[in-house]
Amino acid sequence: MNLKPLLKYALGREKCDTLFTNATFANLCTMELETADIAVKDGVIIGIGEGYEAGEIIDCTGTLLVPGFIEGHTHIESTYMTPRNAAAAMVAYGTTTAMPDPHEIANTCGVEGVRFMKRESENLPVDFYYGAPSCVPASPFETPFQEIRADEIKKLFEDGTCSHLGEMMNFPGVCFGDDDTWDKLNVSRDKVITGHSPRVVGKELCAYLLGGVTSDHERETKEEAFEAIRRGMFLMIRQCATGRNLKTLAPLLIEHPWIAARCITVSDDLFPEFMRERGELDGCLRELIEVGVSPFTALRTITLSPAEYFRLYDRGIIAPCKIADIVMLDNFRNCKVLKVWKRGKLVAENGAAVEKITRSIFSELPGFMGKDVKTPTSEELRIVAPDKSAKINVIGMTNGQIITKTLCVEPNIKEGLVCADVRRDIAKMVVVEKNRGTGKFSVGFIKGFGLKRGAFALSVAHDAHNFTCVGIDDESMAAALAELARMHGGIVVADGEKILASLELPVGGLMSLLPIDELCKKFSELRAAYGSLGCENGFAFMQLSFMSLSVIPELKLTDKGYVDISDGGIKPLFVAR
Amino acid sequence: MNLKPLLKYALGREKCDTLFTNATFANLCTMELETADIAVKDGVIIGIGEGYEAGEIIDCTGTLLVPGFIEGHTHIESTYMTPRNAAAAMVAYGTTTAMPDPHEIANTCGVEGVRFMKRESENLPVDFYYGAPSCVPASPFETPFQEIRADEIKKLFEDGTCSHLGEMMNFPGVCFGDDDTWDKLNVSRDKVITGHSPRVVGKELCAYLLGGVTSDHERETKEEAFEAIRRGMFLMIRQCATGRNLKTLAPLLIEHPWIAARCITVSDDLFPEFMRERGELDGCLRELIEVGVSPFTALRTITLSPAEYFRLYDRGIIAPCKIADIVMLDNFRNCKVLKVWKRGKLVAENGAAVEKITRSIFSELPGFMGKDVKTPTSEELRIVAPDKSAKINVIGMTNGQIITKTLCVEPNIKEGLVCADVRRDIAKMVVVEKNRGTGKFSVGFIKGFGLKRGAFALSVAHDAHNFTCVGIDDESMAAALAELARMHGGIVVADGEKILASLELPVGGLMSLLPIDELCKKFSELRAAYGSLGCENGFAFMQLSFMSLSVIPELKLTDKGYVDISDGGIKPLFVAR
Repeated sequence: MNLKPLLKYALGREKCDTLFTNATFANLCTMELETADIAVKDGVIIGIGEGYEAGEIIDCTGTLLVPGFIEGHTHIESTYMTPRNAAAAMVAYGTTTAMPDPHEIANTCGVEGVRFMKRESENLPVDFYYGAPSCVPASPFETPFQEIRADEIKKLFEDGTCSHLGEMMNFPGVCFGDDDTWDKLNVSRDKVITGHSPRVVGKELCAYLLGGVTSDHERETKEEAFEAIRRGMFLMIRQCATGRNLKTLAPLLIEHPWIAARCITVSDDLFPEFMRERGELDGCLRELIEVGVSPFTALRTITLSPAEYFRLYDRGIIAPCKIADIVMLDNFRNCKVLKVWKRGKLVAENGAAVEKITRSIFSELPGFMGKDVKTPTSEELRIVAPDKSAKINVIGMTNGQIITKTLCVEPNIKEGLVCADVRRDIAKMVVVEKNRGTGKFSVGFIKGFGLKRGAFALSVAHDAHNFTCVGIDDESMAAALAELARMHGGIVVADGEKILASLELPVGGLMSLLPIDELCKKFSELRAAYGSLGCENGFAFMQLSFMSLSVIPELKLTDKGYVDISDGGIKPLFVAR
Repeated sequence: MNLKPLLKYALGREKCDTLFTNATFANLCTMELETADIAVKDGVIIGIGEGYEAGEIIDCTGTLLVPGFIEGHTHIESTYMTPRNAAAAMVAYGTTTAMPDPHEIANTCGVEGVRFMKRESENLPVDFYYGAPSCVPASPFETPFQEIRADEIKKLFEDGTCSHLGEMMNFPGVCFGDDDTWDKLNVSRDKVITGHSPRVVGKELCAYLLGGVTSDHERETKEEAFEAIRRGMFLMIRQCATGRNLKTLAPLLIEHPWIAARCITVSDDLFPEFMRERGELDGCLRELIEVGVSPFTALRTITLSPAEYFRLYDRGIIAPCKIADIVMLDNFRNCKVLKVWKRGKLVAENGAAVEKITRSIFSELPGFMGKDVKTPTSEELRIVAPDKSAKINVIGMTNGQIITKTLCVEPNIKEGLVCADVRRDIAKMVVVEKNRGTGKFSVGFIKGFGLKRGAFALSVAHDAHNFTCVGIDDESMAAALAELARMHGGIVVADGEKILASLELPVGGLMSLLPIDELCKKFSELRAAYGSLGCENGFAFMQLSFMSLSVIPELKLTDKGYVDISDGGIKPLFVAR
């Protein structure tokens, strides 16, 4: 952008667009509060000081201006919203830039899904810079829409769809020199490469770093986090519903304030209800300050530090020549977002986006959207007990965690069929391949949902996101799956043939077209519906969505059957005595 | 560079090249001292920790390792050495990367001169990343080899000769929208644009920033420096023989330690004798610590901060995946450089480069090198007094400064010729155009050198670097200029026809082929020679080299005659009464 036409405004010779007067703002360069007038023209901060005039005057007395927040690692799909609705929700909390990793849509719709996300992100109040998906498929034991290799990643960079490499989860592949993984690293060498390396320390961390990975959001202990920083990584402190590391890691910012220059606070998986409950990065800022981090140190981790890390030279501070992304807070105690400006335009106030977000262009989405998946009938779901006596493998859920145990139990046999067993809290589980439309399915059993009858199903199932269903009887399960197919993805609760509640997730089987508040209402209905079937786990869907995640041990069920990655891969349902 | 082959070394499975054991090193990420083993393979730090083996073991007990220093703003031409000899001198003081601005050679040899510098910089112990010359010519009142416009700058970026835009001195051109200047800014928009804006504050600073300029090394007061930082600039604290700002600006680093993340300490003009006297960035580090800046804060400004500013992601800290540029100091009190490693190779110890630097390829240099300049004879230098009585304009030097005054005095007329006047300390001054080989010359008078007889001449004369001479008699001046032409540039002291001392500067008329110590010896001889002629100014050559600098007021003499940029440009020698 040629800023030459803005010179006369910077020199105060002509009236600019907007002038923030009596503006006390956080200067992240000097780490001090400064009070001055801030002049904006054509979305750019063109002057700070006295003597500017403007068409619109905004008196900032009694408030605190800070740079627009930069969300350094998140997944839009986890909001269950399209980029448009997600942006509307996020901007109300002060986020004006985000670096989403489109890993989920890449699994269900391939690179065209990623391009769709980018197209959907134009002209929004939040600038989305996408990471190229680095790990699709997550393992050979599940079926994504397509495998994404280095050459596709290169194209995503070249056509401007992606700006950096998304979280490199395949740390064994990096450390031990897997060719495909290194091809991806090498095509990303002049980009920022973001990481994911829980518990990788010592020599393996050094090897992982040789891959060019420069950040990590999976450090859960102070020791691991500090080691990552010491070895040159940018630490991403994550605070989301499923990974709350802020209180554990914040003391590092107190003990070593300088690491704020190498530290980014992120939301990762942003669930709508969690956002409504405590905000987004504004919530992180508040929580960091509450536990004793200095306000400037805390603020740097969601503004200047992510800007520096992601090489976004036009933002992160309030200064001339930077884009006018400005958040008005009440103060550093409440960190309440009063108003938000994106490129000088008021985009949010009173906790809501100012402009109605236009409808998504999701019908363009290729891949899954066009495919009709044939789901199994109740007859097809039946499992005939083998002639010979055998035990069955069952997924043993651990309360609130995504790690599971392998249970080997006596089957519950009725009329020659292996059935769920309410008495022992064992439900039946089905995964139906949907990304390639084959309808192939696998059946297993899972313990721990507390379900007494009926079934629930969803199309969000990490990482390949096939149709996944748990239930007590085959009729309910077949009905839930059929409804899921009819909706082209979503969440369904069924009791027999009756659909008790449902939410359509037509965009890649992952995202709704609803805005955040309607979505939260839907989640309440769904929770009430499965609650009426006996399941009291408030996060039952989220927990089920991780029961196909083959990269986390022990037993999981994917479209290819039972998988235990820690024990050689595919596992049988029946265990011969 | 594909680092995959280094994995086995990082994992400790094979012996690496070099292991620094018991290494106490400055960790700039955490701002603390850390003690560990540092393993290097193929010039890259591949591991930090225990349990590595190596072919070469370096016991670092009792020393302090820091990252190789990064010189954020310098002019190689000011060292009077070629890049090869300059690198040999600089590396002994711990500098392993430098960002030279080849402004001087660009004036005398054009873009091919810049390309020559880059070619001369291959395989040296210091990585030189050149700025593209942004201001050639410095003004319309002097004659460089060629004008360098935006399209040439673009080519210098495209062919890899330059990495950033050199100091944008034309701040009025930036602030007030000069088209040529903005063309240069706009072709540099995705690069780092370095600045030069002394005393530009307030609205004009805001306008200057819109040009995309992000640093400045010309801030001389705390207030101006702090304003630059506040408005988002990287402050370059300069400490060189002609601009010593360190003590003035260092208090900012004490009062606001966080600005170290936006602050770079630089040497700018590096004179050989100044280097021999107090070192280079090692001297800056020592001086910063002496005045009370914390060692880590000080160190950051010559390592990580310049690496971040110049987007050199592979250096600036001691960490895996970074190049093994390592300086061994005795401690933070003396900051004595004991040894230096570049990409893992020992390149300096005991204050000297380890390897003999190979001879320069300067014969390749186009432009001036091939041209023979006809210099004026003593007869041609004569100035006939006009028929009508008139006063003459004389350059009034201010002690040790580059700013001058315009003096209007009675001429000293002998035998109908206007002559120098020893009694009033007025010498004659001549500038001969050499860059385009025209030999056109201009004559004036200058007060303040203390010269009693003879003449001295040099081919270093900012910014166009034409042949410049001061003297008492025309014979001495003609002899000095003729010798300068014979040598294709240099420094000459003459008494009548006798050459008392000389130094050849054949490379662009700016650089010698001698290494630093021989050069310092030559300077002593030259100083003794002009001292014998009555001039006691230890910096007489340097001072003369600024007497053609047309961008600094008041009166200067260029090949086009007297110039006063603050008063409309060209000025006459004779002033009618």
